[in-house]
Amino acid sequence: MCELFGMSANVPTDVCFSFAGLMRRGGDTGPHRDGWGIAFYEDNGCRTFHDPRASAESEIARLVRGHAIHSELVICHIRKATHGRVCLENTHPFTRELWGRQWTFAHNGKLRGIKKRQLTTFRPVGTTDSEHAFCWLLDQLRLAHPGQAVPSGSLEPQIRELAADLGTLGIFNMLLSDARHLFCHCSTNLAWLTRRAPFGAATLVDEDLTADFARETSPTDVVTVVATKPLTRDEPWTTMAPGTFRTFRRGELLPPARNRPLSAR
Amino acid sequence: MCELFGMSANVPTDVCFSFAGLMRRGGDTGPHRDGWGIAFYEDNGCRTFHDPRASAESEIARLVRGHAIHSELVICHIRKATHGRVCLENTHPFTRELWGRQWTFAHNGKLRGIKKRQLTTFRPVGTTDSEHAFCWLLDQLRLAHPGQAVPSGSLEPQIRELAADLGTLGIFNMLLSDARHLFCHCSTNLAWLTRRAPFGAATLVDEDLTADFARETSPTDVVTVVATKPLTRDEPWTTMAPGTFRTFRRGELLPPARNRPLSAR
Repeated sequence: MCELFGMSANVPTDVCFSFAGLMRRGGDTGPHRDGWGIAFYEDNGCRTFHDPRASAESEIARLVRGHAIHSELVICHIRKATHGRVCLENTHPFTRELWGRQWTFAHNGKLRGIKKRQLTTFRPVGTTDSEHAFCWLLDQLRLAHPGQAVPSGSLEPQIRELAADLGTLGIFNMLLSDARHLFCHCSTNLAWLTRRAPFGAATLVDEDLTADFARETSPTDVVTVVATKPLTRDEPWTTMAPGTFRTFRRGELLPPARNRPLSAR
Repeated sequence: MCELFGMSANVPTDVCFSFAGLMRRGGDTGPHRDGWGIAFYEDNGCRTFHDPRASAESEIARLVRGHAIHSELVICHIRKATHGRVCLENTHPFTRELWGRQWTFAHNGKLRGIKKRQLTTFRPVGTTDSEHAFCWLLDQLRLAHPGQAVPSGSLEPQIRELAADLGTLGIFNMLLSDARHLFCHCSTNLAWLTRRAPFGAATLVDEDLTADFARETSPTDVVTVVATKPLTRDEPWTTMAPGTFRTFRRGELLPPARNRPLSAR
């Protein structure tokens, strides 16, 4: 199964600790044998690293592990290919510009019949069902807001509705960002945890590694991490129920916005 | 002045030699003080590295210098900021998906009044005149071919015409790729060189470094490099005249396609 990881924080934060645990996961014959990718937002900019090879052979994984890139928003994906060959263009997370913002998407699961859904503006570069779903989702948002400007008001109700729709096609665990929010849809497996003062220590599930966040943070820091399964064994993770949707901004869980129908579908 | 570098080859080729010379350039107070970026195509996939910091401080530059990434198409840009603050989203090359292909763009120069040109689909994430020009160029291509499929036939005449149009706004030295071709427009400074058998040795202009391509290549390799100014002192570079346009594919210079007007502008 693919592994998803996301982070939303109110201060640029590195993900070295989580990344160490994450890189232990992802397949039987070796860790993450079908590639991995990670997107780091820095303000409006978005820096991505992709590698279709196993991370053990990856110079790029060494760079990300060894060098603490600080970001307020991260989306990471470790792939076990179920759909589409193993190559750079099929490696999550996928990125597109919409309304002058970089959108980033990673998906775990499988969607039956997604490729029958017509696309208008955004088109996949690779052959995965996931990238097709991402293009369809952005197309629907664009069609619902045909003007050029970023729509005012929350897009959360629409994205939640579109994610629920995609979920009817199979398994759709999703992390999505518009450079501001981290949108999370759980179909089968997704859990989250918010770290804030008073900070303590935490130990990874997958590796015998402990971090003392009290030493690395300031009292006002708020950092939420989201993962396919809890990454640490001694912190109070919230397991999302199938069909639920959560939105984080600057580390905080946002209250669900009032549901509004899409003006065009 | 910004430095541009491009490479088109018929076989995956590393750019370590050129990159060593290139990284010596770009500003008085230190090399490439306003950031740099590079895009490597691997089939349809495109891997980009961006750093808004000087390359001397850049872990990412060390990765690219030390690790031979092989690619058939490369676009690199070293920035001396003239327009837009120094940050990740203002760092070339810029990338957008059109017709299911990743397009990549880097620009050296300055375009007066470019931001008055209206955009329809593509919008800048940052604030540079360059990214606005890139979005406008892709918008024009999309408007001229409103269907979903990649247009059949050569896009070269249209891209050449659009580049010439942008050139009327100021200085427009440009490298552009659609994952297949390397399109080059010269406004003031651009030179190119094709290496093919029999391969010899070459010495960098900017650094006391010599490569013996005969040892690193096979007889059928064809590799074209394009740069703001010749990178080597002992090879027959062709300096492009102001206003000229050249297209390379798999290392070879393509004959200019017959000029056709854009069907919509």
